[in-house]
Amino acid sequence: MTTDLSALFDRLYPLCRSITGPGLRESLAMFGEHMPLEIHGVASGEQVLDWTVPKEWAVQGARLIGPDGSVVCDFDDHNLHLVNYSVAHSGKMSLEQLQPHLHSLPHLPDAIPYVTSYYNDRWGFCLPDRQRMALPDGEYTIDIRTTHTDGEVNFATTELKGESDDIVLITSYLCHPSMANNELSGPLGLLRIYEYLKALPRRNFTYMFLLCPETIGSIAFLSRFDKTIGPRIKGGMVLTCLGGHRDTLSFKTSRRDWLDTPSPIDKLAQHFADTYPDRYEIRSFTPTSGSDERQFCSSGFNYPMIQAARTVYGQFVEYHTSADDKRFMRIEQVERAADNLGEFLEAFDYEGLLLQNRHPYGEPQLGRRGLYPTINSPMNRNSSSDGTADNRRTLNILLMCLSLADGTRELKTIAEKIGCGVDELLPIVKELISQSVIKIKKGAN
Amino acid sequence: MTTDLSALFDRLYPLCRSITGPGLRESLAMFGEHMPLEIHGVASGEQVLDWTVPKEWAVQGARLIGPDGSVVCDFDDHNLHLVNYSVAHSGKMSLEQLQPHLHSLPHLPDAIPYVTSYYNDRWGFCLPDRQRMALPDGEYTIDIRTTHTDGEVNFATTELKGESDDIVLITSYLCHPSMANNELSGPLGLLRIYEYLKALPRRNFTYMFLLCPETIGSIAFLSRFDKTIGPRIKGGMVLTCLGGHRDTLSFKTSRRDWLDTPSPIDKLAQHFADTYPDRYEIRSFTPTSGSDERQFCSSGFNYPMIQAARTVYGQFVEYHTSADDKRFMRIEQVERAADNLGEFLEAFDYEGLLLQNRHPYGEPQLGRRGLYPTINSPMNRNSSSDGTADNRRTLNILLMCLSLADGTRELKTIAEKIGCGVDELLPIVKELISQSVIKIKKGAN
Amino acid sequence: MTTDLSALFDRLYPLCRSITGPGLRESLAMFGEHMPLEIHGVASGEQVLDWTVPKEWAVQGARLIGPDGSVVCDFDDHNLHLVNYSVAHSGKMSLEQLQPHLHSLPHLPDAIPYVTSYYNDRWGFCLPDRQRMALPDGEYTIDIRTTHTDGEVNFATTELKGESDDIVLITSYLCHPSMANNELSGPLGLLRIYEYLKALPRRNFTYMFLLCPETIGSIAFLSRFDKTIGPRIKGGMVLTCLGGHRDTLSFKTSRRDWLDTPSPIDKLAQHFADTYPDRYEIRSFTPTSGSDERQFCSSGFNYPMIQAARTVYGQFVEYHTSADDKRFMRIEQVERAADNLGEFLEAFDYEGLLLQNRHPYGEPQLGRRGLYPTINSPMNRNSSSDGTADNRRTLNILLMCLSLADGTRELKTIAEKIGCGVDELLPIVKELISQSVIKIKKGAN
Repeated sequence: MTTDLSALFDRLYPLCRSITGPGLRESLAMFGEHMPLEIHGVASGEQVLDWTVPKEWAVQGARLIGPDGSVVCDFDDHNLHLVNYSVAHSGKMSLEQLQPHLHSLPHLPDAIPYVTSYYNDRWGFCLPDRQRMALPDGEYTIDIRTTHTDGEVNFATTELKGESDDIVLITSYLCHPSMANNELSGPLGLLRIYEYLKALPRRNFTYMFLLCPETIGSIAFLSRFDKTIGPRIKGGMVLTCLGGHRDTLSFKTSRRDWLDTPSPIDKLAQHFADTYPDRYEIRSFTPTSGSDERQFCSSGFNYPMIQAARTVYGQFVEYHTSADDKRFMRIEQVERAADNLGEFLEAFDYEGLLLQNRHPYGEPQLGRRGLYPTINSPMNRNSSSDGTADNRRTLNILLMCLSLADGTRELKTIAEKIGCGVDELLPIVKELISQSVIKIKKGAN
Repeated sequence: MTTDLSALFDRLYPLCRSITGPGLRESLAMFGEHMPLEIHGVASGEQVLDWTVPKEWAVQGARLIGPDGSVVCDFDDHNLHLVNYSVAHSGKMSLEQLQPHLHSLPHLPDAIPYVTSYYNDRWGFCLPDRQRMALPDGEYTIDIRTTHTDGEVNFATTELKGESDDIVLITSYLCHPSMANNELSGPLGLLRIYEYLKALPRRNFTYMFLLCPETIGSIAFLSRFDKTIGPRIKGGMVLTCLGGHRDTLSFKTSRRDWLDTPSPIDKLAQHFADTYPDRYEIRSFTPTSGSDERQFCSSGFNYPMIQAARTVYGQFVEYHTSADDKRFMRIEQVERAADNLGEFLEAFDYEGLLLQNRHPYGEPQLGRRGLYPTINSPMNRNSSSDGTADNRRTLNILLMCLSLADGTRELKTIAEKIGCGVDELLPIVKELISQSVIKIKKGAN
Repeated sequence: MTTDLSALFDRLYPLCRSITGPGLRESLAMFGEHMPLEIHGVASGEQVLDWTVPKEWAVQGARLIGPDGSVVCDFDDHNLHLVNYSVAHSGKMSLEQLQPHLHSLPHLPDAIPYVTSYYNDRWGFCLPDRQRMALPDGEYTIDIRTTHTDGEVNFATTELKGESDDIVLITSYLCHPSMANNELSGPLGLLRIYEYLKALPRRNFTYMFLLCPETIGSIAFLSRFDKTIGPRIKGGMVLTCLGGHRDTLSFKTSRRDWLDTPSPIDKLAQHFADTYPDRYEIRSFTPTSGSDERQFCSSGFNYPMIQAARTVYGQFVEYHTSADDKRFMRIEQVERAADNLGEFLEAFDYEGLLLQNRHPYGEPQLGRRGLYPTINSPMNRNSSSDGTADNRRTLNILLMCLSLADGTRELKTIAEKIGCGVDELLPIVKELISQSVIKIKKGAN
């Protein structure tokens, strides 16, 4: 049973989320209906790493009234109209005085931009540039009723246990108001990946899921949890922008990859991109932009975490505007991304398991196991066994696998040396395991 | 005195060899006339690694008689007519019933294919496709008189002692009936290489020579000898298909090279291919096909052995047919291959010996040793010494050699860094040794 | 106050220097007027490494008189007329007998070549080829009055102390008679670099300066000083041919670079060449030619020393002739070279100092430090901070620097990973240091 993401989207979209406050808590509660989330809070004013938890922001209402008394912007119409984290303000001023408080986009004249000012007291309105250009001179009335009160920053976690205590951390962020690709696609995809991994018959790794406001949320999480989970993290994935028009998924590798010491999950991402270039691409790590990998991959933590996305910042002009809506995002693109990432993580679950040929001295006699042709003639050079004429592809993969499975290599390493995908090698390996020709052993780390 | 390979070929060619039996033993005995071979035997039924030694196969006669009483195939005419290792069978059947027991090659209509069925009871005849197509309907008489009896699998070894106990293993196979390039070229070349190395004034390595039936023979050898010789093997070479039309020799590197940890003999092969690309080529290791390197380079043994060949499987359509005969093979191509491989092995004999400049602090004063021009003028910039105008090539090689010979590098490494062949460097090194400017020391391993 | 190199050049140029003798000593004394040089001497006949210190050579006069009594060559006209280190000789001979003692250059018919014969007793005259071709038959009178007497080979050193005892050795040679680019440009440049480094407010390294005759001088120096300074040498630079027509400076890397284990100064040279290809180039090390790096980089010493030059051997046809004069060399080219090399050495002075981000866990909150925009809107994506619209270049460099400054990397390594020059990164690092976001720590070695 997988959740109907479209219906869930429609409930989440209208909420006015920010990095703190009721919109965030309501959103986490909705996800909690589908997965057993534990909600955490860190109090306003508390020091978390180099940051201080800000106050909770709540909006009672916000309107900009024109000289003729008509409503120019109303928070109740679209929560992007109000600069996120705006301080309260009421008063009157001329259009000229008002202009520094207005935000619009000349290149997207019908979209409302998304503007935030978390750490500096500001107020302002966002509106379509076409509307702004038509504003008449005269006296405008500002009525912003917001509060900044002591509260907490919240985040939510849950776990799927595996055989090992090693952790794979999967996370996305909840903190933007009504936006779709760059907000809801990540948490919705996370929920679907949770359901995919929960359905697996066995898991090696333990999977930890985290939903949090971007930056301050992940910083609060790390401040609390790094001591416990940091040493156990074997890989992780930040989910962002899983929808949109692009066909391929892309992986932004970790800081470790950037420093030429790629971690296993970096290497698997590279393997998928190399093997299926029409489905996966690599973006190199950079600390200059991105989502919460900026925190998880900061030099002190240096987690082996990649970021996965479909249509990211820089690839869609609708980014951070009201045009980033459900129609742009498309639910089925998010679902397809989550399913592919589920397969990717299922393959990653074999990380650290080594293949060992049990008959490494000479070739094992494959003929008596039905894995080699029993007649040798110039006519059957293309056969993998007496009954399989596949240009010897299966047999060649099998023989290379036997040579490579010397107890020092994993499934992926072997597939790469052979030049095939992990998914093509796996059924052959399973056959060799079932015939006791190969066994699996746990790696040193 | 080198053996007349052509005459020896003519005696060996008609024998019906298989992986066991009298044909194999007679062939080994003929080689024993020219080198001091020790013959070994492992009994039928004995377990060798993952294999069981099969029974000895002997043929008393085999004929296929047509409906009109004429002889269609007779083993006495050509021993390829009978499927190698065929079980005995006598009886009558229609052409339609007979067809699954006939083997021919539509793309080589005048050649008899070579077909084996060692590990599954079968009988059958091989014949030219042109002949098979013309077979009339009617009742055919099969008369195959063969025996499979307890006996042994045989192989033969000999050694050339060197200063060191480290072993270089040189091997080829004897197990195919009347074929030339893919059978006799290897053992004949091995004999000539034996004679080449025997004639050297000094040898560093000890050379072990092995003649055996392919696969089961090398498996039996390894089962018996690996414990003794495995730790001493510093390099080795499987000889196969040394004749045929191709100009170049090719080296198939070892499994170690495939895994990006090339052994010294892999590196020397690469050096020859890099330095003399018109004479030597590299084929990358693969465990999917080949000769006995499939056993020697299996992951458990992982010997540093290369395979050397001239015209290999995939490069000649006559492979595994009666068309692989002396005319195709050409004795002089085998001789040339063996001579080149002798030179190669002579160079490999320097493996592990390090060059040490005895005057490493500053440049030695070469002028007083006649190794540098004693006048310095814009007119003699091309001179290597007062008497040698060679565009300074000798002097440049000498100066680079002095810089590189710091006691950590071998001849080959130095030649490669300089960018010349081992053979060009060697006389210069000998001059420097004779003037006590350079000495040779034994490497750490 | 920097020395007027042009005036100093004019005093040095006429002196007849050789590898020993009064011309060398007078030249060293002139440099000693501008830097506190200590003069060293090693006696004739003393063994230095594989060499023996030769006798001192002095010229009282040398003339070649034609059949008609006219002067063909006179040492007093140009000291290149006499083969350097010529033995004394007086006598008469025919033109034919004289020819083996004459040196001229057909391809440069108006230049006097520079010819030496230090280690073999010879005499001879050098003259323009045009003049030589016009010599009439008849009896010539040779009158060479030179002496070879016991004395010493001289070299001169001085030091600039730094915080560390680690040494950077900067050297050039004095041993050619009247030539400019390939003689005086190096010592003059060395003096200017001395003045550049002396003016720095702080130095990490201690700088040692050496002026010596080529080959025998550096060999004598090494014979005396290696034990003391060898273990402390962290880098060094041989100066040669700093003038001439070429725009770029080139660095010949050290033997360590040639052997694929480049030293820090090799890497910095590569960084400059990579970052500013229009200003710097790399020449690979070779032991076959060059200046005193042949000794410093011999395998026993293996100093991490590069050679720096502008227009070197092979790049100017005037090399080793009278045409290598002040007009060819150009004082301003030497000055520019020295200034650039001063900057290079100033950057090298940071070698071994590691940058450490003091807030490595998560991103530091840059906004409150004025290093990040405090408003986040689609309109200010190009801003590095609230006031800086530079396409985010400064902010991107800063963020990458924070990620890379994990206490394992130096300024140069970080600049290279970022893809900018050391000079662009340095001011940003200084800002981060002043805000206590980054600190500098001493590396392990």
